[in-house]
Amino acid sequence: MKHEYSIAIIGATGNAGHKTLQILEERNFPVFSVHLVASAGSVGKEMSFRNHTLKVQHFSDIDFSGIRLVFFCGGNALAQQYICDVTKKGCVVVDKSSYFRLDPKVPLVIPEVNGDVLQKGAPLGIVSTPNCVATPLIMTLEALSHIASPKRAVVSTYQSVSGAGRRAIDELYIQTKSLLGGGGTVAAEIFPKRIAHNVIPVIGDILGNGITEEEEKISFEVCKVLKSDVKIAVTCVRVPVFIGHCMSVACEFKGPVSENDAFEVLENLDGIICLDRRDNGGVFATPIDVQNEDAVYVSRIRRDHSVKNGLIYWIASDNLRKGAALNSVQIAEEMIRRDPSLALFQRRNRLLSKHALFR
Amino acid sequence: MKHEYSIAIIGATGNAGHKTLQILEERNFPVFSVHLVASAGSVGKEMSFRNHTLKVQHFSDIDFSGIRLVFFCGGNALAQQYICDVTKKGCVVVDKSSYFRLDPKVPLVIPEVNGDVLQKGAPLGIVSTPNCVATPLIMTLEALSHIASPKRAVVSTYQSVSGAGRRAIDELYIQTKSLLGGGGTVAAEIFPKRIAHNVIPVIGDILGNGITEEEEKISFEVCKVLKSDVKIAVTCVRVPVFIGHCMSVACEFKGPVSENDAFEVLENLDGIICLDRRDNGGVFATPIDVQNEDAVYVSRIRRDHSVKNGLIYWIASDNLRKGAALNSVQIAEEMIRRDPSLALFQRRNRLLSKHALFR
Repeated sequence: MKHEYSIAIIGATGNAGHKTLQILEERNFPVFSVHLVASAGSVGKEMSFRNHTLKVQHFSDIDFSGIRLVFFCGGNALAQQYICDVTKKGCVVVDKSSYFRLDPKVPLVIPEVNGDVLQKGAPLGIVSTPNCVATPLIMTLEALSHIASPKRAVVSTYQSVSGAGRRAIDELYIQTKSLLGGGGTVAAEIFPKRIAHNVIPVIGDILGNGITEEEEKISFEVCKVLKSDVKIAVTCVRVPVFIGHCMSVACEFKGPVSENDAFEVLENLDGIICLDRRDNGGVFATPIDVQNEDAVYVSRIRRDHSVKNGLIYWIASDNLRKGAALNSVQIAEEMIRRDPSLALFQRRNRLLSKHALFR
Repeated sequence: MKHEYSIAIIGATGNAGHKTLQILEERNFPVFSVHLVASAGSVGKEMSFRNHTLKVQHFSDIDFSGIRLVFFCGGNALAQQYICDVTKKGCVVVDKSSYFRLDPKVPLVIPEVNGDVLQKGAPLGIVSTPNCVATPLIMTLEALSHIASPKRAVVSTYQSVSGAGRRAIDELYIQTKSLLGGGGTVAAEIFPKRIAHNVIPVIGDILGNGITEEEEKISFEVCKVLKSDVKIAVTCVRVPVFIGHCMSVACEFKGPVSENDAFEVLENLDGIICLDRRDNGGVFATPIDVQNEDAVYVSRIRRDHSVKNGLIYWIASDNLRKGAALNSVQIAEEMIRRDPSLALFQRRNRLLSKHALFR
């Protein structure tokens, strides 16, 4: 008998939630039923799935004990508030927020890179998907590690506004339209300064050591997924692009590397497409080229002659797909492949239940 | 008697030419007369200078033997065609193009950094101003070299469209307006792909080694101005911003560096303003903040813990000012300070004239 799953998407009306629903349909994920959950302001909104019209519900209106798989597409505050509750009800959660990513009991997974960590299950009932910059970066470093171990990577990002939510998209649109229409400047609300025709070199709060939350996440997540001590020096910058994150990567390796070898190993990793070869006239990928594409595109691969063993390259990928929703759905597919009952990934409640006897 | 100079601006109607005229007026440069030179299509256009209306002329209509100082604001093809002609007439040329920058007989000058090289004059009658990314980068590296020698810098740029000329500004404007107005995509002409709400990781042609012309220029010019063998690994990226170039810099040094020391030495270089100190809540500069500002702004200074002695920082500056026109005018000011007759900077013609006897 074919397994089909009762699913909930928490944060269904946001960029990642909406994209998750779309990708579940595209990939013909074995869905038995879908519940869409969002904040009170969105309750009652309609979204379509396989020719059905679904209504958005409030968290408190849903009986999670009947749901097997939850895609959590909200932020950290909501993750803290809701995720443990639903795992206690037996749900398996694929979490897009950063709240649990660095917890040693929570697998942080890119299926093409470290899907094998799922063989141990998920002790808390939670599997996290990495940051939208970290995911494509990790994929390239994993591929290149087949030539030589990455030692240090200097990364600068060009991140689109969709990574900051639906209201961020509106902010770029409204500000740009007003500027070009002669309506003057519309005040920044989501971003710390005007984003229209500007770039902002700060994403998230600046921490005590001068790096931002976003930059810290990326460094830590790369090391966790790759089980590596590779050093990442990253500057995260928001650019006035709607969808698609890019980054320049200058990576130093522990041994020799060549452009041709890099091209081969990158192409060999599922989910990566290499566009660039010198004899191909310098093809390269920009955000608008990769919008709605599943693959992570690598181009402008070249030797970095400023170090002994170095490569520089350019990554472009759809931050809402591989950077978020697609990777989440692929994690769920990988879990199902390993244990169609998903029991392996449910919270291990027995000990907790025993303790409950003493409450 | 106060010296005043007969001046010509070649390429007067372009972004840099227009800005040069404006800055000559702002800084009260000792001008006796101004000739504005541009291509046939612009001849007859009017531009204002100190309440005078000046008409744009064609190159062939001007007697350069009566002109002392030429600001050349065109590209390489025109530089090759015209500059030697005017130096033969005795003109001293401040050249914004890249054509002569790496010629060992042509001083490449940022007055705050290496104005002293002008004490030897200019044997070809030409002084070049560096690339608009190289100039601010060099200023920061020069300042930081007072703490420790820079060994290697990994740089990623966020370059505005104004660096590509007036038609590039129009292209961004028209494409953006059409997209947001529902008019669809307007084909790219100046840039290799759509620039509106996109970023393009290629500036100039891609050379045989995989780096672009723009990237190569920057590496070479940094070394020439600093008389240093610092290695520069740079990725140049065009962003949909009208004015203002930014870059992230991760610099490794030969000795220890601290954020506080970096702040002090950067602030001590004329022409740099440091915005950032941790205790100041993370102030930072974006392109719209630095538009029409003379200073190069440095912010987000932080230790780079991925190397032993490293700093990461963010530069923002007006590419049309310090990156082009302002530096050119400052070069002229520095020449006048050293030799008001400018004879020191005229082409050394005697040998050539002698040879001419045998022609």
